[in-house]
Amino acid sequence: MTVKPDFDSDFQDKLSDLFKWRRDVRHFLPDPISPEEVLELLEEANLAPSVGLSQPWRFVLVETQEKRQKVIANFENANSHALNDYSGDKAKLYSQLKLAGLKEAPVHLAVFCDEGTEKGAGLGRRTMPEMLRYSVVTSIQLLWLAARAKGIGVGWVSIMDPEKLKQDLAISEEWQLVGYLCVGKPKQEEITPELERAGWESREELEKLVFRR
Amino acid sequence: MTVKPDFDSDFQDKLSDLFKWRRDVRHFLPDPISPEEVLELLEEANLAPSVGLSQPWRFVLVETQEKRQKVIANFENANSHALNDYSGDKAKLYSQLKLAGLKEAPVHLAVFCDEGTEKGAGLGRRTMPEMLRYSVVTSIQLLWLAARAKGIGVGWVSIMDPEKLKQDLAISEEWQLVGYLCVGKPKQEEITPELERAGWESREELEKLVFRR
Repeated sequence: MTVKPDFDSDFQDKLSDLFKWRRDVRHFLPDPISPEEVLELLEEANLAPSVGLSQPWRFVLVETQEKRQKVIANFENANSHALNDYSGDKAKLYSQLKLAGLKEAPVHLAVFCDEGTEKGAGLGRRTMPEMLRYSVVTSIQLLWLAARAKGIGVGWVSIMDPEKLKQDLAISEEWQLVGYLCVGKPKQEEITPELERAGWESREELEKLVFRR
Repeated sequence: MTVKPDFDSDFQDKLSDLFKWRRDVRHFLPDPISPEEVLELLEEANLAPSVGLSQPWRFVLVETQEKRQKVIANFENANSHALNDYSGDKAKLYSQLKLAGLKEAPVHLAVFCDEGTEKGAGLGRRTMPEMLRYSVVTSIQLLWLAARAKGIGVGWVSIMDPEKLKQDLAISEEWQLVGYLCVGKPKQEEITPELERAGWESREELEKLVFRR
């Protein structure tokens, strides 16, 4: 592809629709996602920006039932600790939320940042070393959007002990967990975030988030 | 918009083109970007996923020449320190790279994470508090893609002392810098990253970045 594409207003509108309809998915159908589809999504993720062109993302497909059971136990343990942080109505609401689709999602993808990579030769990381992990976040975001455009849902699970996960998956000491993703066909498609529908939190308008100097 | 959009294969292909043609831009035309266009981009950024629906992004438009001069001085200082980390051919190459378009870009946007926000009530941040900053990264990524689709370039400057920047911009102690963005019309459109064209680093194929457990 050497011809510069024309991103017309129709595409721009659809892109905005994609942003509006992207959701964090916790309810999956059991339908499988083919290995080819998974690799297609990872190819999109590999187009993400990265500091110094370091491409520090490491994609770990968690495939065995044994490993997945450990991941589910990790989540359940972290989630019960989290519940203890709330009381009253908020605790009741938290306990009713479905916060991960780990049991149903056909694809489990753990995304790590290789903090030891020499790729990029350190460019752009001297005063902000966190740029390496931020680059990995952008790769997750591209995968998420590409998936949604193909009718595939992604849920990002952060209720997890990252060090325990690294042990359970035999991950190098130098890699840091950035995101644990559930991937699969969503049970339903919604424009409103699940946490908003459940009454946990509401959306803030932009004007309160913009400042000038 | 209550009708679920149809993201067909044509859109999926164009989305992939967008990912391929997104660039970190350091060469800007002096053409202005209107305030309305800037707000449109920020509206897209405000659609990003955020842990617990916390929307921790804080967008600071740096508009005065006085503030911008301080930002440029901050970059130049950090960049000269960074140059000292290299020697030989790599130092020569580094010194020839153009790593920011701060002087030409019509729009300067500093994006912070409000670490003190109570929005989201801490959900999903207990074991991975960095999720708050990662959410801000996703908002930058959406802004970047929306901009590129409209023919507007974004450059992410990480060669900067974040604490000095916070002082210079009179930013709350609880906010952390995530990205300093230059925004404007790009001088040229390229499919190949500037660091690759300059010979700093080359792209890695996906297969070396995928693992199975």
